[in-house]
Amino acid sequence: MIHPPILLRTISDLRANTASWHSEGLTVGMIPTMGALHDGHLALVTEARRRVDRIVATIFVNPAQFAPTEDFGAYPRTEASDVEMLAALGVEAVFAPAAREMYPEGHATTISVAGPALGLETDFRPHFFTGVATVVGKLLIGGFPDIAMFGEKDYQQLLVVRQMVADLHLPTEIVGLPTVREADGLALSSRNAYLSAEERRTAARLPAVLQQTATAIRSGTDAAEACATGRAALEAAGFRPDYLELRNSETLAAPIPCSSEPLRLLVAAWLGKTRLIDNIAV
Amino acid sequence: MIHPPILLRTISDLRANTASWHSEGLTVGMIPTMGALHDGHLALVTEARRRVDRIVATIFVNPAQFAPTEDFGAYPRTEASDVEMLAALGVEAVFAPAAREMYPEGHATTISVAGPALGLETDFRPHFFTGVATVVGKLLIGGFPDIAMFGEKDYQQLLVVRQMVADLHLPTEIVGLPTVREADGLALSSRNAYLSAEERRTAARLPAVLQQTATAIRSGTDAAEACATGRAALEAAGFRPDYLELRNSETLAAPIPCSSEPLRLLVAAWLGKTRLIDNIAV
Repeated sequence: MIHPPILLRTISDLRANTASWHSEGLTVGMIPTMGALHDGHLALVTEARRRVDRIVATIFVNPAQFAPTEDFGAYPRTEASDVEMLAALGVEAVFAPAAREMYPEGHATTISVAGPALGLETDFRPHFFTGVATVVGKLLIGGFPDIAMFGEKDYQQLLVVRQMVADLHLPTEIVGLPTVREADGLALSSRNAYLSAEERRTAARLPAVLQQTATAIRSGTDAAEACATGRAALEAAGFRPDYLELRNSETLAAPIPCSSEPLRLLVAAWLGKTRLIDNIAV
Repeated sequence: MIHPPILLRTISDLRANTASWHSEGLTVGMIPTMGALHDGHLALVTEARRRVDRIVATIFVNPAQFAPTEDFGAYPRTEASDVEMLAALGVEAVFAPAAREMYPEGHATTISVAGPALGLETDFRPHFFTGVATVVGKLLIGGFPDIAMFGEKDYQQLLVVRQMVADLHLPTEIVGLPTVREADGLALSSRNAYLSAEERRTAARLPAVLQQTATAIRSGTDAAEACATGRAALEAAGFRPDYLELRNSETLAAPIPCSSEPLRLLVAAWLGKTRLIDNIAV
C-alpha cells in the first residue's frame, strides 16, 4: 500500500515538518523541482532514499527565474501526477507552495551569486541565477534539510547553488547526480515536451555533437577550433546555438591553456521555440 | 568575579556554540556590531539580558558595507576594550572573525534588499545595504540566534534587516531599541569619535533641528516646507545635509498626504569629514 506524501503549502509547515523529523533523530533530504517530473528527478529521489531517512520534494514553478519573454506561462504544470510519482517512490512530503507564499506582497530580498554564475547561461538569461539562488536559498532556509539533490544536467546551476550554500554557511550538503538520458542520448528535461516529433529526432544531435567536440579536444584539437566546429555542426542540424564552451569544471572559469585542470563542455541551443542545454565532462 | 566571554573566530565555532546552548534548552540573543562599543550597544546587551539566556555579541568591521572612498581604514578598532565592556555585562560569547573568514577567496554571494532600502542612505551609499544584508544574513544563518538586537539610530538598516529576515524566513526575531543619546541630544555613534571639540558642540544641532522639524510637521506645516526649513537650519549651523526626509515609519515609502500613517523623520548630514545620521518618530 502506498502512503500519499504529506502535502505542505507554507514555509512554516515545511519547517515544522523538518523540525519534527529532526527531533526524532531522522535525517532529511530535499529535492527542489519545478514539477513536470521525469526519470531524471526520480533518480534524485532514488539516491536520496539511499542517503537519508525522510525525503521532501518541492514543486514550484519559480516566476523569479523566468524573464517576461520566457515560457513561465507555458511551463508544464502537472502537480497531481507529480505527487503520484513521488508517492510511488515513497517520498514522505511534498512542498508545493503558491507563488504568493514564496513571494508575498512587498517581498524585496534577492540572493545573487557571481563566480560560477558569470557567463554561459547568464549571458543569455541575465535574471536566471538570481531567481534560482533566491528561491533555493528560501527553500533551504525554510526546510533546513541535511542534504539537497540537484541534477548535473543544469551544471552551472549546481555550481551556483554550491557556491551560495558555502558562502551563506547553509547547513545543507549539496549532492549533484549525473544527467539521465534517453536511449539516443538526449538529456531528460521537462522542456523536451515542447519538441515536435521531428525536432525530437533532431534533438539527439545535441549530445552527439557534445561528444564529438569532447573527443576532438581530448585528442588534441584546439578547444576554440573544436567548439567552432561543434557550433557549425549544430547549425547544420537546424539548431541556433547560444553557446558551446569549454570551462573549468569546478569554477566555470575559462580554461588555462596546457594546464591539467578538470574540464567541462557546456552547450545551450535553440531548436525551434525550445531551448535545450546539456554538458559533459571532457 | 567576571568570566571572560568565549572568543569565537569561525562561523563553524559560532554555530557549534549556539547549537550547544540550544541543545541545553537555552535561548540565544545575538548583537551584531562593528565594535567601538558605546552605551547604545550596551543598552542592546542589557535588553537582550532580560530576554534570553545566553548572549553572543559579534564584532566585525564589514568591508562590504564601505565604498572605497569611505572610512573603512579609519573606522575605530578597539577589540580588547570592547571585549572587556561585554565581559563586564556578562556577555557569554564574542564572535570576532577575520575578514577572510567572512569573505574567503572566491566568495561570490550577496543578499540585496529593495523595498525599505530604496532611497535615503541608498541614494548616497548605494553599496551600503547590500553589504549590511549580506553580512547580517551570514551572521544570522551562521549563529541561528532566537533574537537579534539592533538600535533605531540606524533606522533604515533596522527595517532592511527586518525585511530580509521575513523574506528569507530566518528563524530569528529582530528587536529594535530606541536610540541612546548624549545629554545634549546627540545620538551615540562610533563615528562621533571623529568630531573635533568644536564639531562636537555643533553636532547637537542635528537632533535639535530634527525635533523642530517634527514639531512643525505635527503642528500642520507642510512636510516639504518644514524639511526645507530644517535643511536650511542645518546648513546655517555648518552641516552639509545629504537628506532630511519624512517617510512612512514601517515601509519608508513617501507619505501619502493627509493619511494617518505612522511617520518618521530621517536625516543624514556631514559635519567636516564626519557623516552623522539620526531619526525620530513624528
